[in-house]
Amino acid sequence: MAVNFPSIDPAQLHPVAGVTLGFAEANIRKPNRKDVLVISVDEGATVAGVFTSNRFCAAPVTVCREHLAKAREARGAKGIRALVVNTGNANAGTGEPGLAHARETCDELARLAGIAPEQVLPFSTGVILEPLPIDRLKAGLPAALESRAAAHWYEAAQAIMTTDTLPKAASAQVAIDGHTVTLTGISKGAGMIKPNMATMLGFLAFDAALSQDVLDTLVKDVADRSFNCITIDGDTSTNDSFILIATAKSSLPAITSVATPAYAALRDAVVRLAQTLAQLIVRDGEGATKFMTVQVEGGTNEAECRKIAYAIGHSPLVKTAFYASDPNLGRILAAIGYAGIDDLDVAKIDLYLGDVHVAKAGGRHPAYREEDGQRVMKESEITIRVLLGRGSARATIWTCDLSHEYVSINADYRS
Amino acid sequence: MAVNFPSIDPAQLHPVAGVTLGFAEANIRKPNRKDVLVISVDEGATVAGVFTSNRFCAAPVTVCREHLAKAREARGAKGIRALVVNTGNANAGTGEPGLAHARETCDELARLAGIAPEQVLPFSTGVILEPLPIDRLKAGLPAALESRAAAHWYEAAQAIMTTDTLPKAASAQVAIDGHTVTLTGISKGAGMIKPNMATMLGFLAFDAALSQDVLDTLVKDVADRSFNCITIDGDTSTNDSFILIATAKSSLPAITSVATPAYAALRDAVVRLAQTLAQLIVRDGEGATKFMTVQVEGGTNEAECRKIAYAIGHSPLVKTAFYASDPNLGRILAAIGYAGIDDLDVAKIDLYLGDVHVAKAGGRHPAYREEDGQRVMKESEITIRVLLGRGSARATIWTCDLSHEYVSINADYRS
Repeated sequence: MAVNFPSIDPAQLHPVAGVTLGFAEANIRKPNRKDVLVISVDEGATVAGVFTSNRFCAAPVTVCREHLAKAREARGAKGIRALVVNTGNANAGTGEPGLAHARETCDELARLAGIAPEQVLPFSTGVILEPLPIDRLKAGLPAALESRAAAHWYEAAQAIMTTDTLPKAASAQVAIDGHTVTLTGISKGAGMIKPNMATMLGFLAFDAALSQDVLDTLVKDVADRSFNCITIDGDTSTNDSFILIATAKSSLPAITSVATPAYAALRDAVVRLAQTLAQLIVRDGEGATKFMTVQVEGGTNEAECRKIAYAIGHSPLVKTAFYASDPNLGRILAAIGYAGIDDLDVAKIDLYLGDVHVAKAGGRHPAYREEDGQRVMKESEITIRVLLGRGSARATIWTCDLSHEYVSINADYRS
Repeated sequence: MAVNFPSIDPAQLHPVAGVTLGFAEANIRKPNRKDVLVISVDEGATVAGVFTSNRFCAAPVTVCREHLAKAREARGAKGIRALVVNTGNANAGTGEPGLAHARETCDELARLAGIAPEQVLPFSTGVILEPLPIDRLKAGLPAALESRAAAHWYEAAQAIMTTDTLPKAASAQVAIDGHTVTLTGISKGAGMIKPNMATMLGFLAFDAALSQDVLDTLVKDVADRSFNCITIDGDTSTNDSFILIATAKSSLPAITSVATPAYAALRDAVVRLAQTLAQLIVRDGEGATKFMTVQVEGGTNEAECRKIAYAIGHSPLVKTAFYASDPNLGRILAAIGYAGIDDLDVAKIDLYLGDVHVAKAGGRHPAYREEDGQRVMKESEITIRVLLGRGSARATIWTCDLSHEYVSINADYRS
């Protein structure tokens, strides 16, 4: 029951020169499903990532951070050459043995592919606190390597699904300084700063060449405007990871500074694609029936706007009211009030639901009629707009409603 | 479907000398239900309260704060003499007209009872953002005054219910320095710092005499150990209020210092009763099927222990797993990890579920077996114990699970 989820045509996902993708059915948790993905990257690419803020981060996240640091030190001499993802098991809350398993995965893939272990980035998503079935994972690697192809982006999106009901992928081509740049990405799960436990993973490759420093800046920039702007249930996973791969195969000259028009053009293209991938996650949010955009404007800074947007986006009472199409909009005011902005003057606040002016100066708008609120609540795409009247900062997040189906999915997830 | 909710015998609720309670069916939102309560307090009592931290606090909360401040200034000359509560409408998000309505309620009750308006404390609970039907409320006051009796605590508990399925009341008698002190209280809703939008209200009277300063200290002390330790869905209401009434009718000499054994004895009795009232709210939590105690120990300070306890208690993923009796306990580790303790060393963390040692030193305990976790998960009263291994501070909160019924109740609340 995803919300206005666009139909994705595998043929419309452009291959990105320098990237091939292969998968396997390794029986990690359940039989007969793609559960291992290998992404191979040609020599000369740069890779950067951002990861969960959860202190209980998964073993593969720790290993990713180590290997990315080593690649950075090596200054291109020994860059990242492969990513390996398993679903069905998060390898989190698994202590030292979990760390050993993540390293063993890299060792085995490196041996098979003829590269060094630190040129491999490992990712896991699934149930926490259970030992990774390392033997089955290793046994699946040859088939995954064997099946690699540049055209396998759609299959790759399928191979990283857990509670997702649909594979998530997007692709674009843009012209920068007269050169065509191709971008393709996949995602799964929900959220990044506030994600669904099913874990958010995002992998996005493009064929432009970027220096490591520029790519490091870009990956944070993009995450903050895309995956860090979504929430489904406010839980931050142990495994969230978002990776950018710059393969350097395009004819566009290498981008070595963020202060260039080429960087700005590329950034905008990557942000657009990442926003699409992030919004696909919300549209396929567990049990989602509504897609909500929460826009908070007129704040003194972006941080307070985000706090208020997230308070609204996380409130189970707001989310259930949207599920019911019930314009019980006082719940939004209440969420604004407890967002933690101590000096907030509620008498300056206006609230819009779609095009309907609901609250003015902190109270119900005299002209507001329940049937107008009701009309907007019945739509499947709804914008909640809050004007704080205290500055010019703004923030936007995307979220979904809370339904019976959400409870069913999460009460049944392991069974 | 309340969880192990004790049967409350109206005859076991002791009257508190100096307090009478009357109610009315004023048709505030729905016909044929008690929806107005008046609590009258004899001259000579002291009254203190704590209120919601929500910036969008309701009009009656603003008026309560003003009137309590005036009573404090008057030093007993013009103390609080009456409380008036309506259900069905929160009088929140109602701007200036809402404030005028709250004052009008006090004016009318004062006129009828022959006291000053500032000797009245008003309370409202129900739907936000809708105008208070002030005429119906005023029309109900004479009947409420007329029906006042010292024995009406149970009826009072009924009169303040909204989405509550059961009235909540508790009573005790304790001997302090050889004098009997009688305490009786009622509550409704859920939560205080993190309460259910249905609003938490608590009123607790006892016949000991306390100076205003001592009572002001006591009310904060008690709230922090009772109503501030519960959560159902993490939403903080606009209307939460907790009021202590000390009627000074007992033979126990007045308590004018917190540094006395009599204060400590009374405080312990009031805390016990308030904890019972708070836990009744959780047991009757919307859709609750499990009552969970979250104990976090070994922290460097109480605040970080509370942060972690609340992260666990608020996590929709933890709550749905408990609803399903599914020992998907990695979700608890994940919640600990994202609670916001930046320097948390997860390698020191142990987790117990009931008597079962689930995680040791940050990873799955080698001896942990899923069937042991399953056994505890199936119980209706479950203790989650987290040992942080970094200090000696601790905190406990009480919460419930998240069920299909929760979604149904909150999707249907206004219909």
